[in-house]
This record gives sequence, structure tokens and C-alpha cells, in this order.
Amino acid sequence: MTPEQVVEGVLAGRRRAIGRAITMAESRGNDGRAVMRALHPRGGHALRIGITGSPGAGKSTLSAALVRHLRAAGRTVAIVSVDPTSPFTNGAVLGDRIRLVDHFLDDGVFIRSMASRGHLGGLAEATGDALAILDAAGFDVVIVETVGAGQNEVEVQALAHTVVLVLMPGSGDAIQAIKAGVMEIPDVIVINKCDRPGADILAGEVESALTLVPPDGWVPSVILTQALEGQGVEEAWAAVERHQENLRQSGRADERARDGMRRHLTSLALERLARDLAERIDDARLDALADQVVGRQVDPATAVDSILGTTTSEEA
Amino acid sequence: MTPEQVVEGVLAGRRRAIGRAITMAESRGNDGRAVMRALHPRGGHALRIGITGSPGAGKSTLSAALVRHLRAAGRTVAIVSVDPTSPFTNGAVLGDRIRLVDHFLDDGVFIRSMASRGHLGGLAEATGDALAILDAAGFDVVIVETVGAGQNEVEVQALAHTVVLVLMPGSGDAIQAIKAGVMEIPDVIVINKCDRPGADILAGEVESALTLVPPDGWVPSVILTQALEGQGVEEAWAAVERHQENLRQSGRADERARDGMRRHLTSLALERLARDLAERIDDARLDALADQVVGRQVDPATAVDSILGTTTSEEA
Repeated sequence: MTPEQVVEGVLAGRRRAIGRAITMAESRGNDGRAVMRALHPRGGHALRIGITGSPGAGKSTLSAALVRHLRAAGRTVAIVSVDPTSPFTNGAVLGDRIRLVDHFLDDGVFIRSMASRGHLGGLAEATGDALAILDAAGFDVVIVETVGAGQNEVEVQALAHTVVLVLMPGSGDAIQAIKAGVMEIPDVIVINKCDRPGADILAGEVESALTLVPPDGWVPSVILTQALEGQGVEEAWAAVERHQENLRQSGRADERARDGMRRHLTSLALERLARDLAERIDDARLDALADQVVGRQVDPATAVDSILGTTTSEEA
Repeated sequence: MTPEQVVEGVLAGRRRAIGRAITMAESRGNDGRAVMRALHPRGGHALRIGITGSPGAGKSTLSAALVRHLRAAGRTVAIVSVDPTSPFTNGAVLGDRIRLVDHFLDDGVFIRSMASRGHLGGLAEATGDALAILDAAGFDVVIVETVGAGQNEVEVQALAHTVVLVLMPGSGDAIQAIKAGVMEIPDVIVINKCDRPGADILAGEVESALTLVPPDGWVPSVILTQALEGQGVEEAWAAVERHQENLRQSGRADERARDGMRRHLTSLALERLARDLAERIDDARLDALADQVVGRQVDPATAVDSILGTTTSEEA
């Protein structure tokens, strides 16, 4: 397929073209750039939901339950999974795949998982491009599912209209992180596996953490779900819609979009610098410098001068 | 204090000078560079131990227990905490502070916590410099304590001679991550809070995860501890020493040091590029570009061209 055919196919919502467009964008050649440049102006209609949480909390199960809920309401949904431990990626939890099998022949559902790891991975670019493609393809809702840690969390906050944090009883990590101010405050908090002991205690801890770190304006709803049985899923979606309604009514939607895009563009710029560095770095020279630093002949900062100096002189 | 006095003080093991050197290095001015250049050749003697794990697993408690164990054996210890949720940082868990109060007047113990967050934080540089200073100051053992996630994990792997992963019953996250190949294989695995239900099950899961992802050569020991009571701490330290012995005997110590330094130098170079970008980026221009991208007049990649183009032209 030529870039033009891919663009045409995406705009017509054809699955093969959508998959091809994402692959082209990931390969970061001229074709990918051309496809993204053509598709970008055609997006802006999809509601982008970020779903974050620790591995095992039930992000994929909640996504699957939301897909069922939204399809029943006649809305189309795409899922982008950037969680490297997700069942969509490694098939570890077959149950989640099976739950989505219902939708494999449903053109109103599209699922894509992205491999990404390390600081050279280009996570921000790959995720941003996939979202833009699925948006241009006309999906009503696009869900980005990711482990809520470090750079992933920053990206999801930057790209999503509403961020849902999924917790489960028995792991207080996220609460500790919110209290310590390490974690961005999500827009909706779902306590999944709420049939397990400790769900009410966790809900209480979350409420108390939220008073410790008061957000200005929006206080996240705390929703109990048992996503595997579909319990609480309707309420979780209603909380997402309340957050969207609040953004519209408070007039903060534009500010949020601009802030998010500033952060996203900064991430993209850093990713490009990192990629340029990785491409230009001389492997033998890096080995020699590492040996000199380990051998205490050169200090690390001077070694970095040398690495970046080399890079610059090759550019010139 | 002049940089020369700071260097002299660090080499004499004086606490005030050590603290000052770390602060100078963090501020990244010429004085800090000079101090690091003078101290770097004087290090290389300390055993560097990385302790990683989720918040709440008991990293700080284990560190405190190791300090007691090592002090009793006549060895000096420094701790660098780069865990933003750590009690050393925010005082959330007073118990851990209290356990270390014994050592507040002990010149053989030094504790420093480093604030760090986000990709502009310069985590690699700050951590690497602190380790080098404490090494030059003559501490026998330097412990780096951090949340084992994302970039932090990469840095600890690059900088430490032995990496200890701390797990606790009731959180299988790390196992899932090891199985998925997302996590580097640690050198020693400690299952802390082993008096809690599920400790043996967790130990079994860990052993099984380790067979799924076979490391070439070194198979991590799995040690059960209850660090609060000091139980298993001696065994944990013995496992660290076994790993060191294996590195020496197998001749892989040099290779590991070089690999780690390559990764560390790459991180340092990226941090410097990120810092240069942050300093040079024009805020009003970034706002305008974000608005144009949100308004669909410019696609993100073209906006990044513009950001980096501006940067380059200001450089010239």
C-alpha cells in the first residue's frame, strides 16, 4: 500500500489500513511521516481514555468490560495497550483474550498492543501516533492502557482526556505514591476485584489520600468494580462522563489539552534527541570511554563531553 | 568551602564536606564539576549495592538492618535513597527513621536522600555523583535504594555491583514483570515480611519465574527475611557476598562494570541533552506550537522539527 492508499483506508475505517498506518508510523520513515501529516488534521473527535494501574490490578479486564458496555450503547472503541506485562502483549492471561474474542469479528472494535521499553523506545511518539490514527479512523472512544509508572504515567496524562487509575485490594502502593505526591492525581479511581477482602478499607484509604493532596477543582470519583462479572462498569463509565462534563462546564478542557500537548511535544523532542544520539554514537568509542572511566583515567562528565562533542562534530 | 577544601574534606571522610560535595555536584556548576573531577580518580574501593522494590516492600527496613549487620562487622556504610516514597525522604514511616537514630552520631554511617522526578531530573548524574563521592570518602559499602521501576531500575543495574530486589507476600507484580521479561533479573531476591501469609507461595512463584527466564551463569539466591526483627539479614548479606565471589571467580566483573558504565554514560548524555533543551526552549513558542497542534494546523512531528530547529539556530 502506498501512503496515500493507507491514508484513504484509515479514513474509511478499514482495519488493514489502520494496522498498516500504525506500523508505518512506528518505523519512522518518510512514509510514516507523510501518513501522520495527512491524518493529523482529520482527528480530534475521539474521546481518549487512559487506563493505568499496577500489573494484575485488572486494567485489561476493565478495558474489555468497557468495550462491551460501549458496544451495547452503539459506540465504537479502539484499545492501545502499552503495558508490557499486559495479556494483550504476551498472552499470559488467556481469559482476557477470550473475553475479547466476541469482538474479533466486530469492526467497531480495534485492539493494538505496542512493545516499548527503555528510554530509547520512543513510547511517546508511538502512542501519540497510534491514538491519532485511531482518532482519524473514526472510533468514538480510544482507550490507552498502560502500567502507571514513571514516563508512561506522564504520557498518559498528556494524551488522555480522562485518566482512570485501577487499584485492587491488597496493594496499597498507589495510595502511598499519591500521598508522597509522586503520582499525578487521576480523574477517576476504580477499585477492582471489590469482592476481595479489604476493598472497603482500600476505598477509605483512597478517600483519605485524596484529602491529603487536594486537587484544585476536580475530586476524582472512587468506584468499586468487579470487572470480570461486569459489576460497577456502568458506574465507572458514568464517572468518566461526569469528568468530561466537568471539563466542558468549567472551561478547563482547552487548558488541559494545551498543557498535555506541551508535555507531549517535549517528550517527542527528547525522544528524537535520544534517537539521534543512539544512531550517531560510535560503539567502539563508547566502549573505550567506559573502560577509561572504570579505570579512573577519565571522569564521567568529561566522557560525556567527548560523546556529545563527537556527535556535534559529525553533524557539522 | 572552596572546591579544594571540599575535596580534601571528602577524602578525610568529614561529614560536612561530603554533604557539601553532593550538593555542589547536584547544582551542576563549575565547582561541582571540579569536585567530581578531583574525586573520581580516588574512588573504586566501595562495594556498591542496589536495593530495589515496590513502595512498602521494606527496602528501607532492610537497608537499616544491613547497616546494623555491617557496623557490627566493623564496616562503614553509606545509603543513598532515590526512592521518592521512601521514609528517608518524606518521613511517612517514622519507624525506619527511628531505627536509624542509633547511627546518627556514628561516623561510620552516612545517609542521603535525593529528590528526583521526571525525565529532566538528572537522576543518573545525581546518583552517579553521590556514589562516587561516598566511594572516595572511604565508605566500605554504599547502598543505593530506589523504587525498581523504569529508568531507576536501569540506573541501579548500571551503577551497582550487586542488585537486591525486595518483594513482600501479597504483591506478585515483580514476578509478573520478571516473567514478561520487563524487569532485569536481580542478583539477589529477598522476600521480606516473611512472617506474613503467602511468603512460601511467593518464594515458589519466584523460583518458577527464575526458571522461565534463565540467566546465563548466575541464578539469584532467594532469601526470606523479616528485616524489622533482623531475621534473615545475615543470610541476605551472605547472598550478596556469594554473588560478588561469583563475579570475581567467573571473571565477569570487568564485563559487568564496562556494560554498566556504557549504560550510565548514555544516560548521562541523554540527561545533558534534555537539560540543554529545557534551558533553551522558548516557553511562549512552545505554548503557541501546542495550540497549533491541538487546533490541527500543525502535526506533532513538524512541531518538534520547529522546536529543535529553534534550539539549533540559537546554538549557532
